[in-house]
Amino acid sequence: MLLIEGTPPVDISALRSANPEHWMRAAAIRALTLDAVHAANSGHSGMPMGMADVATVLFEKHLKFDAAAPKWPDRDRFILSAGHGSMLIYSLLYLTGYEQVTLEELRNFRQWGARTAGHPENFLLDAVETTTGPLGQGISNAVGFAMAEELQRAEFGRKIVDHFTYVIAGDGCLMEGVSQEAITLAGRQKLGHLIVFWDNNNITIDGEVGLADSTDQVMRFKSAGWHVQEIDGHDPAAIDAAITAARASAKPSMIACKTHIALGHAAQDTSKGHGALTDPEQLAAAKAVYGWTGGPFDVPADIKAQWEEIGRRGASERAAWEDRLAALSERKRAEFERRYALEVPRKLSAVIRALKKQVSESAPKVATRKSSEMVLEVVNPVMGETVGGSADLSGSNNTKTADLGVFDVDNRKGRYIHWGIREHGMAAAMNGMALHGGIRPYGGTFMAFTDYARPAMRLAALMKIPSVFVMTHDSIGLGEDGPTHQPVEHLAISRATPNTMVFRPCDTVETAEAWELALGAKTTPSVLSLTRQNLPTLRSEHKTRNLTAQGAYVLADAEAGKRRAILIATGSEVEIAMAARAALEADGIGTRVVSMPCMELFAEQDEAYRRRVLPAGPVRVGVEAAMRQGWDRWLLGERGREAKAGFVGMSGFGASAPAEVLYEKFGITAEAVAAEVKRLLG
Amino acid sequence: MLLIEGTPPVDISALRSANPEHWMRAAAIRALTLDAVHAANSGHSGMPMGMADVATVLFEKHLKFDAAAPKWPDRDRFILSAGHGSMLIYSLLYLTGYEQVTLEELRNFRQWGARTAGHPENFLLDAVETTTGPLGQGISNAVGFAMAEELQRAEFGRKIVDHFTYVIAGDGCLMEGVSQEAITLAGRQKLGHLIVFWDNNNITIDGEVGLADSTDQVMRFKSAGWHVQEIDGHDPAAIDAAITAARASAKPSMIACKTHIALGHAAQDTSKGHGALTDPEQLAAAKAVYGWTGGPFDVPADIKAQWEEIGRRGASERAAWEDRLAALSERKRAEFERRYALEVPRKLSAVIRALKKQVSESAPKVATRKSSEMVLEVVNPVMGETVGGSADLSGSNNTKTADLGVFDVDNRKGRYIHWGIREHGMAAAMNGMALHGGIRPYGGTFMAFTDYARPAMRLAALMKIPSVFVMTHDSIGLGEDGPTHQPVEHLAISRATPNTMVFRPCDTVETAEAWELALGAKTTPSVLSLTRQNLPTLRSEHKTRNLTAQGAYVLADAEAGKRRAILIATGSEVEIAMAARAALEADGIGTRVVSMPCMELFAEQDEAYRRRVLPAGPVRVGVEAAMRQGWDRWLLGERGREAKAGFVGMSGFGASAPAEVLYEKFGITAEAVAAEVKRLLG
Repeated sequence: MLLIEGTPPVDISALRSANPEHWMRAAAIRALTLDAVHAANSGHSGMPMGMADVATVLFEKHLKFDAAAPKWPDRDRFILSAGHGSMLIYSLLYLTGYEQVTLEELRNFRQWGARTAGHPENFLLDAVETTTGPLGQGISNAVGFAMAEELQRAEFGRKIVDHFTYVIAGDGCLMEGVSQEAITLAGRQKLGHLIVFWDNNNITIDGEVGLADSTDQVMRFKSAGWHVQEIDGHDPAAIDAAITAARASAKPSMIACKTHIALGHAAQDTSKGHGALTDPEQLAAAKAVYGWTGGPFDVPADIKAQWEEIGRRGASERAAWEDRLAALSERKRAEFERRYALEVPRKLSAVIRALKKQVSESAPKVATRKSSEMVLEVVNPVMGETVGGSADLSGSNNTKTADLGVFDVDNRKGRYIHWGIREHGMAAAMNGMALHGGIRPYGGTFMAFTDYARPAMRLAALMKIPSVFVMTHDSIGLGEDGPTHQPVEHLAISRATPNTMVFRPCDTVETAEAWELALGAKTTPSVLSLTRQNLPTLRSEHKTRNLTAQGAYVLADAEAGKRRAILIATGSEVEIAMAARAALEADGIGTRVVSMPCMELFAEQDEAYRRRVLPAGPVRVGVEAAMRQGWDRWLLGERGREAKAGFVGMSGFGASAPAEVLYEKFGITAEAVAAEVKRLLG
Repeated sequence: MLLIEGTPPVDISALRSANPEHWMRAAAIRALTLDAVHAANSGHSGMPMGMADVATVLFEKHLKFDAAAPKWPDRDRFILSAGHGSMLIYSLLYLTGYEQVTLEELRNFRQWGARTAGHPENFLLDAVETTTGPLGQGISNAVGFAMAEELQRAEFGRKIVDHFTYVIAGDGCLMEGVSQEAITLAGRQKLGHLIVFWDNNNITIDGEVGLADSTDQVMRFKSAGWHVQEIDGHDPAAIDAAITAARASAKPSMIACKTHIALGHAAQDTSKGHGALTDPEQLAAAKAVYGWTGGPFDVPADIKAQWEEIGRRGASERAAWEDRLAALSERKRAEFERRYALEVPRKLSAVIRALKKQVSESAPKVATRKSSEMVLEVVNPVMGETVGGSADLSGSNNTKTADLGVFDVDNRKGRYIHWGIREHGMAAAMNGMALHGGIRPYGGTFMAFTDYARPAMRLAALMKIPSVFVMTHDSIGLGEDGPTHQPVEHLAISRATPNTMVFRPCDTVETAEAWELALGAKTTPSVLSLTRQNLPTLRSEHKTRNLTAQGAYVLADAEAGKRRAILIATGSEVEIAMAARAALEADGIGTRVVSMPCMELFAEQDEAYRRRVLPAGPVRVGVEAAMRQGWDRWLLGERGREAKAGFVGMSGFGASAPAEVLYEKFGITAEAVAAEVKRLLG
């Protein structure tokens, strides 16, 4: 083993001669990285150049994959958590012969329309398991991938599910707090099929790691219950042996790989090496050091052939797997395939309709977090792919149903996760589960802690995966815990995020409808905004149709021709709007109430429907115990000039007091709504 | 030392008889906690009951404080990171005689208008150093407190600044990822005056800690370079000795305190004990076990007297400190006091004006992140209280100026912090610095990573502290890094947050004005949204007045009587609006351009000014490379019915490509703006 410590020079020729064939395969990654970054005149060269040896050994000797079938469900997952080093994965995909990554794609690295984006995007390339770039996300997604594998292995058996999740993480990933949440969770759950390579290159953008951090990472991972090894990240034999040992361990494994960022380049071992290395002379010099004779983007045929053989290495294993899948019972195979296709079972709409019928008749007065539990009690038994959980608020988020069982080392079939006080790690791991396939994750916390989960919630939207975030205690209605726990801007935050459905149901019927939509989504995450406090059932008239699917609808109307006001409300404030309507009607002011459980879906309706629900003319008052931002489109009219409008809600942070006192003091009452209508009517 | 392991029963009588006086002082905290939670019928009883012994010893023997002077600058700081246990601090403040916490306040725990809110709020009680409740924030603030102390000790000397920061953290704080950022940073910086008590009670809301976590916390803290001790948290002698040892250590210290949550109550050692213990019989039984004879809120006079003496313990030390402060040179004392009063130096406006004059003449074409650096280059030399930094993007955020020096173990006067890849920890520690007093922190990252810093950014707004978040690369204008790094919803997110000023300057002049406002703020944090790409100087005409202070203003106008369109733009899109105006004017369409660098400040202007800037009539087009949310108020008119309006911006996530290509592809161009105006004019 060649142990390389400290700063350059590194004896590259010794590395070359020690393992000449390996060297040239790895050099192909380094050369393509240099060429692509040079062509783009931007990007990150150093990381792929530093980790090329590790990646080469992994792909050559261990990673179970078939370049011809990037979506093979039982493939090993490879996650580049240090996503800025995207040329590492693009090089590997090109070299091993993935159809989507052509030479043309490499030439167009970081250009408009290319699949080879600045950071790896799961929606651009089938073989990119998850979008990485924001540091710490990949390693945290990976915990969800590994949990999903455990769950499915327990359910479908080793013959169908038995694979590893490999991660390359950098110093940045390990400095981000979310990595601690991920690491400790993986250690607690003994996720033995999770293997993390730490690219221990001692360099960050600002300089040496020591500038900002002096953590003993080996001790840190051990404190979380991991199996840890330290190796020279440029020694193929050491890399191979470490992976073999990691696979044999029943614990999650971290392999600390001592590497040289930008190996062989003038910028080696410097923070400059982290960025775009574009100088042509230095580029040529590095290639010369490697013994690389190919021109730009030119990989000698023998080396390409070696890589393509690696890309076909898993083909027979995949064929055998296909046979095993085909040998499953028809029922089991169909179930497996249904889950991966994100198709809901036929029974779903039936159980939702039955629940709606039942509650529209019994008209329970419950919190919508409880409504959500009632829905989950009927959904979870018919959807074996749901996996629930909470960030240590199980009893408050009402996310745990009777039959799920708790996921644990000795109960891998358990479908409920005690995520601990790790909102961010939870959301990121949920994304990982969804990305793995075969799982529909939902997880709960207080809505104010959207803030903690936010980086992963955004990525769910960007990655087009249907994670469901169950956010309870969704307003000042949570009461005494006070303003730190009372969301006021969090509806606006989620609504501002592209490709996110924000549901704020007003009762059990709408909650059931929201869940049906969230579970039916294939490419959009959902946020369920649910109350702590009890609400009446307002949809007492049973309807088969999912009205929430239209985003907003007329819940109660004025007599024909007498409509002078429209109240638009969501969630807990629909009850207030209904009370205000009663008072206004009693005063002879014809009033419509529009329930608007999902602004995003309403925006998608055709204009005719939107105008029918919100006709120009009557004054409009929005009612929501939150900031006004995001409401003006509906209040002022999409083109302006439509209506005189007002808003009854919050204009600042909440306070600590019982919920009913807060509603009174902050002026979110039926009286205030009625008064605002009268003021607008003049 | 009484080592108590495992679950009940605990021999309370042995604890009582071992240290009878200590026991009764601690029992006062336990009894008041039970009474207040009972009266409120909500709250968290178990943590104050578990940590009463630790807090009693700390306040009695170590904490430097004077109950008569909660804002004494050289007091030790006491931070209850596990803020749900708020009755611990309220009991201590009442018992030691702080004026603001009366018996009446304890009786009104968690009620409207009380200072004794559900979670401790810094803006309600002088002695609450920081708002805690969202877990992990307090311990992360504490790192900033300890850094602030080091900085000021280095500058003003030990006679003026020499105090400790003590933290009580629970399992929840330590599970949150941000705690890892805080812990590793404190270890790297060897913050020897930081001492953390871990309330090691093995209980979270969902059950035993082991349900979700199995971290060896002792090893974890050691891996980060901390001094670590393990003690019985109910043994006063052990607590005392551990604090003494911690104070003597040059490293930050963690004292793992094995405690029993809800000690002595029927719910002891259970997750039920974490919440509100309100059963009257169990309450009476617990008091009987304690030997507590007082009725509700009744503290026997001798015990109260002992506590009040503790509250006066620091009075003479404070008097001596006042003498030492008075003995400083007039200049030095005035400087110390100015900084704590958050007064800007007189020179500030002069250097800002000079810079504005210079750049309005030289008209540089630079990115506003560079403009920000130009401002900081003139500000930092005249404001010794500024402390800058970046989360490993120093060269990109342009936050480092020539004269700051780098804060480090051997350079405590350094005013630039290499925060590492820790956006959340950075923001939380910045808040801690601001709360400590005497420091004006600013810190940078990419604007998309607002997501990571968000929980602390919200708390800055809630806590009313003027942290300045320097968010560069603020749109698709960052180019090739792609959608993970391109903010589109983050302006909306910060604008939705109460008490936050979001500045998006269009050139160096506005950047200078934004900085002047951010530094002048005493109770409001600021977000500076700055470009990666170069922008022209648009405010070429030198103006002495700070126009940004009005939030929006007319940058260019149509000829009198010919105004048919108003373009409203921010930041990098003001240039585009100006080009669109030129094209429209050439087509005979009189066009006004309004630059709107700060919506919040514009909203605060009187109606007459707002109407002057945005008169009803002309069509309006907003231009911002971001989501529309938050714009409709200005586009559609505050009351509706004001204008036909359009918006040129983003409607989804960005993409990876060079910036100019992205602006073209996403249609944010002068041509698109002009076309939208013409469409609206019909």
